[in-house]
Amino acid sequence: MSASPSSPRIEAAARLAGASRRSEIAPFIVMDVMERAARIEAAGGHVIHMEVGQPAASAPSTAREAARRALDHGRIGYTSALGIPSLRARIARHYGETYGVEVDPARVVVTTGSSSGFLLTFLAQFEPGDRVAIANPGYPPYRHILTALGCEPVLIETDAASRWVITPEALLDAHRRKPLKGVLVASPANPTGTMMRPQALAELVRTAESAGIRFISDEIYHGLDYAFPASTAAAISPEATIIHSFSKYFCMTGWRVGWMVMPQTLVRAVERLQQNLMISVPTLSQIAAEAAFDGASEMEAVKHGYEENRIILTTGLPAAGLPEFLPVDGAFYLYADVARFTDDSAAFARRLLDEAHVAATPGVDFDPHRGHHYLRLSYAGAPDEMREAVRRIGDFLRKG
Amino acid sequence: MSASPSSPRIEAAARLAGASRRSEIAPFIVMDVMERAARIEAAGGHVIHMEVGQPAASAPSTAREAARRALDHGRIGYTSALGIPSLRARIARHYGETYGVEVDPARVVVTTGSSSGFLLTFLAQFEPGDRVAIANPGYPPYRHILTALGCEPVLIETDAASRWVITPEALLDAHRRKPLKGVLVASPANPTGTMMRPQALAELVRTAESAGIRFISDEIYHGLDYAFPASTAAAISPEATIIHSFSKYFCMTGWRVGWMVMPQTLVRAVERLQQNLMISVPTLSQIAAEAAFDGASEMEAVKHGYEENRIILTTGLPAAGLPEFLPVDGAFYLYADVARFTDDSAAFARRLLDEAHVAATPGVDFDPHRGHHYLRLSYAGAPDEMREAVRRIGDFLRKG
Repeated sequence: MSASPSSPRIEAAARLAGASRRSEIAPFIVMDVMERAARIEAAGGHVIHMEVGQPAASAPSTAREAARRALDHGRIGYTSALGIPSLRARIARHYGETYGVEVDPARVVVTTGSSSGFLLTFLAQFEPGDRVAIANPGYPPYRHILTALGCEPVLIETDAASRWVITPEALLDAHRRKPLKGVLVASPANPTGTMMRPQALAELVRTAESAGIRFISDEIYHGLDYAFPASTAAAISPEATIIHSFSKYFCMTGWRVGWMVMPQTLVRAVERLQQNLMISVPTLSQIAAEAAFDGASEMEAVKHGYEENRIILTTGLPAAGLPEFLPVDGAFYLYADVARFTDDSAAFARRLLDEAHVAATPGVDFDPHRGHHYLRLSYAGAPDEMREAVRRIGDFLRKG
Repeated sequence: MSASPSSPRIEAAARLAGASRRSEIAPFIVMDVMERAARIEAAGGHVIHMEVGQPAASAPSTAREAARRALDHGRIGYTSALGIPSLRARIARHYGETYGVEVDPARVVVTTGSSSGFLLTFLAQFEPGDRVAIANPGYPPYRHILTALGCEPVLIETDAASRWVITPEALLDAHRRKPLKGVLVASPANPTGTMMRPQALAELVRTAESAGIRFISDEIYHGLDYAFPASTAAAISPEATIIHSFSKYFCMTGWRVGWMVMPQTLVRAVERLQQNLMISVPTLSQIAAEAAFDGASEMEAVKHGYEENRIILTTGLPAAGLPEFLPVDGAFYLYADVARFTDDSAAFARRLLDEAHVAATPGVDFDPHRGHHYLRLSYAGAPDEMREAVRRIGDFLRKG
């Protein structure tokens, strides 16, 4: 049965070589920025990192201590697919404490970061070909995960007139053109840091559900709200799906642990999918996550640092010559309009890095249409670095 | 824009309620067994657990110590999407040390357990509608993940005549009926513990590739081979995809960390998918996994326990009245033919649990066609428990 190298063999090998169409996803341009930054640092330069979307701080000490204790206590085995019951109960309690909303622990699903939350909820709710509305600009994996699963992401343009959120009118307009099956919003949003006002969120949830469009609310930056308190879709409808994570507020990016609050009717489907696609969520991370809630005072101190950074940037950047950005409401992002300087934000980001040693993410990573006029600046670093960044950006812009 | 409860609203809510068709996956019947076992234990009974597919032992102390050190060293942040470079290099070295095969670290992709390896490699290689051959009986998530991603699992029946593996003839036969895009085999296999002889694996790889069928080799039970040394598809073709995990040999189930060796041409596609679908693999687990290789002597001791268990079962069960099982080559599974006792393995497993307090998995979880005649017994526990299991099974069968 063994085959010798032959022409049909070579043709067969050629057929084997290519990747699937659905894996053809645009790479992040920020990766180039990070590589260039690493080269500058290797040559002795001091780069201010405003390109990365992760906190500089560590997980709460309570979380790390719980992980240490678990390591001393024997086997780290599988957990049930929906997550450790005491963690699910603790997350449910968090909704009562934070928003005054009662959430049944049975609706809480622990996930391997928000990433697997998106994967599971898209698979559980949408068929191939289903259209799902997302805001533009937005977090690129939304459209890439949807595409990989055979769904059609429908980009809805947002602008200053609507405070950069999807409006009920824009949603219904897209739905009339061709029916939507779902809509996904984030507040605070990435890359903009802009939030939906409570009334805007409530109206959009109700509009979507009245039209039979499933609502998914990405709330992974909740806890990091400065302009006004973030409101949860869980308080508006039990049919909305909430995606959340320990990565941002609790500084647990590398732990890969998050959660969802699901409509009760979808929990069983998600359980079956998680059993088959993931088995269970990393156990140490779940144990640490439960203990993280006891470390909120440490996390509040980290948040105060972001608040200080936000003031440094929102007052400093206009004086430095960068006066236009979207509402800087929450998360740790500032989305700056650089149209007066460039029509090519990727080239602009490269120059800013090479000449001023400030690393930022070009808007083209987040917005295929208008991103060439924007930069995303992450302010998850230290206040002194933010002051230095403002000074460097000012010098850079003055030099032209 | 807010909607009041109305008839269209209620209809829309009804449309919202259902889960997607692709999430309609059969639940594991073993879950019922586990629940029943927990009830017996809560009532003071002593259950011998032969239903679970995970080692009773802990990760190597080297792995746990590395995780502890990382916890003391500050932030557990994201890693690069393909994995920590030193871990990828260590895995590549493992192929040289274990099989004498040179593997380029650039072809190694770290994954969140073998589960996400399957997800990534299916997405990277297969389009919706593609047919992928798998052996029956087999690990149920193969067909469930393929189905969730829109692919068609093609079950190929195996039997004693072919030593329970897919033969080149059977593969080509299925391919002629309707073209296959891929074939996935496991050796040692779950649920059978049966292995492919080196020649059988090599012929199947070559046959598949000559026919333009991608080869995926699930090698997660490698290291746990007793009858003869397991051979890796990586030694046969650089176009084969190898799926592996730290869960079984290294006893790291709950850590959710594994790896793939990919064809070079697919690495970039997998990298983009992992960036978007997972961001990165849990960092502590990666750090622990790299150190696990230094704990192989501990793991060899665990393996010797399985070898002892295997002898206890293969000599004891025939004497106890259960003489027929598939070749008990590797992993920690024995797949027993119970056709002489029942036509309903699920009911038989319930009775074995209720009356003898031995928990086993009915074959119907693994084989929709003939599984009602089989039980899977996992021997990952302690030798004393295995001896007691043989005694209980003997008593149970004698009672009828």
